[in-house]
Amino acid sequence: MPPPRKRATVHDIAAAAGVSRGTVSRVLNGGYVSAEARAAIEAAITEVGYVPNTAARTLKMRRSQAVGFVALEPHSLFLDDPNIGAIMLGANAALSLADHQMVSLVVESARDTERVGRYLSGGFVDGAIVVSARTHDPIIKVISDLRLPAAFVGHPPDLDQRIPYVGIDNAGSARAVTERLLATGRRRVGMIAAALDRDSGIDRLAGFRAALGDAFDGDLVAEVPHYDYGSGIKGMRLLLDREPAIDGVFAASDAIAAGALETLREAGRSVPGDVGLVGFDDSTWAVRTQPPLSTVHQPAKQIGTVAAQLILRQLRGEQLDPGGQLLPTPIVWRDSA
Amino acid sequence: MPPPRKRATVHDIAAAAGVSRGTVSRVLNGGYVSAEARAAIEAAITEVGYVPNTAARTLKMRRSQAVGFVALEPHSLFLDDPNIGAIMLGANAALSLADHQMVSLVVESARDTERVGRYLSGGFVDGAIVVSARTHDPIIKVISDLRLPAAFVGHPPDLDQRIPYVGIDNAGSARAVTERLLATGRRRVGMIAAALDRDSGIDRLAGFRAALGDAFDGDLVAEVPHYDYGSGIKGMRLLLDREPAIDGVFAASDAIAAGALETLREAGRSVPGDVGLVGFDDSTWAVRTQPPLSTVHQPAKQIGTVAAQLILRQLRGEQLDPGGQLLPTPIVWRDSA
Repeated sequence: MPPPRKRATVHDIAAAAGVSRGTVSRVLNGGYVSAEARAAIEAAITEVGYVPNTAARTLKMRRSQAVGFVALEPHSLFLDDPNIGAIMLGANAALSLADHQMVSLVVESARDTERVGRYLSGGFVDGAIVVSARTHDPIIKVISDLRLPAAFVGHPPDLDQRIPYVGIDNAGSARAVTERLLATGRRRVGMIAAALDRDSGIDRLAGFRAALGDAFDGDLVAEVPHYDYGSGIKGMRLLLDREPAIDGVFAASDAIAAGALETLREAGRSVPGDVGLVGFDDSTWAVRTQPPLSTVHQPAKQIGTVAAQLILRQLRGEQLDPGGQLLPTPIVWRDSA
Repeated sequence: MPPPRKRATVHDIAAAAGVSRGTVSRVLNGGYVSAEARAAIEAAITEVGYVPNTAARTLKMRRSQAVGFVALEPHSLFLDDPNIGAIMLGANAALSLADHQMVSLVVESARDTERVGRYLSGGFVDGAIVVSARTHDPIIKVISDLRLPAAFVGHPPDLDQRIPYVGIDNAGSARAVTERLLATGRRRVGMIAAALDRDSGIDRLAGFRAALGDAFDGDLVAEVPHYDYGSGIKGMRLLLDREPAIDGVFAASDAIAAGALETLREAGRSVPGDVGLVGFDDSTWAVRTQPPLSTVHQPAKQIGTVAAQLILRQLRGEQLDPGGQLLPTPIVWRDSA
């Protein structure tokens, strides 16, 4: 094994070519040198494996041509939520077309928050897309203070009004899918509500409540921490304990619905025979359960595309209209309700 | 909406404070200026929202304190393979402890390959972890040519021998799980083989072949492109067409096994009654199918941790032993075989 590799520098070229650093710099910057010196320097560049430092050059222009993609709460995002992948790919494709490099930054610990804050403020990126921020997330303050061009996916209630966002109408979509479930004749309908520290979780619960109106019963809401399969199992057990006659469930995500389905199966309840079950997201989960899930389609890839465009427009100096963009969320009615 | 936000510069501070740029620079670099000028400059720094440019400073030290995490073939990785999330979180946690920022770079198109190559060579990262490279992947050549400290997850056959890697013994693990399946008394055992342009895919097929020895029948190998659920459906249909009496299947991933399980269910075959089915990965898929999958455990988070450590050791100037590190892969025997 050779010694650890180090980036070749102008020094190395100068030493290999037997010329001064100034002469090397002139060649690298397109200036005049003798044909002999140029040939020696070009041979030395190949020999030492020199690559020009783009970071240094872009810094002079105060542009890195890179955009951060900050994923908060990555644990449940990466391990249980297939939407995050689709959002990333949508954003990457749009940034790629505009010759910008997307750099994803994972924030899992307080240590990460602080270091990502320094990174965002350090000139390494021209802007940042932030996914899944909680209320009072310290990253929101970092981005506000920096005045970094940014776009949020979703809309934490305390978001700086100047920062644009893209998302969906969580409350309206949750209301629509719950109304559709009620229209199938279900009488005792509960909800497995998740992520109540985030706008999406709060709004989905609000929509469920609005659909039920006077029939809303707080006992039929099981609160779970995450949008994941394990939370679906826990939440459904809670609901069955509290109301054995439950005949309808709105799960706050498809992964939760998949967990709930497993719990219902173990409890000997058929879906949709005994219990009508609806999810949210229309992620890969929805078509892989038995029966496949009736759910709300979330246009994840397009959300990524729009977030990228919001950044690119700011980088071009465009004025953005205040507020956010909400994308349509059709109901996809399959076999679970 | 205020005009698009721009990063404040030394110019802006100088203008706001009514002093020269040189005076501002002296304050920023800890030099001497009059008490009056210092007070004016400090007030101006707050007023214009100036943040020092860390990128410029780290460039002088030729270190960015950032490490790239290059995810190739992200489509199937992010949408179907829960392991990639665990690898990312493992790598991020290890880099975070060493105060390095992990930046994930998605390579989905030829355009991405070229731009990520430029990014890696541009001084923005001190090293790179590369996941899921195919044989002849252009990123391998970029990294070899750059002499960038790197670590591969998996081992493409044409990998530069100087680049360390971490992975698992795909051939040995595939052989072990197939032998275990054969030991349950299955007579006509097939394989759904995927990703034959990558070391992991090639090696899992080789292990299957070795387990069968003289009984190996090429007709009982269905080749599919990806490690995903859809490929499992296609592959299992092929195998049922070719050999209706098939009674055992080794699927090259758990997602493939989940798709195969669905096809078997539709065809009226019980698992494990009629057909014994084993997967590979021990990902979240394995515990969510009915029945849960017998499979090979892949230590995804630890793979990420080791990859990060391989980079950090190179950055500290340590000599690495040649070759790769293979982590243990216990068989997890559940109910599908």
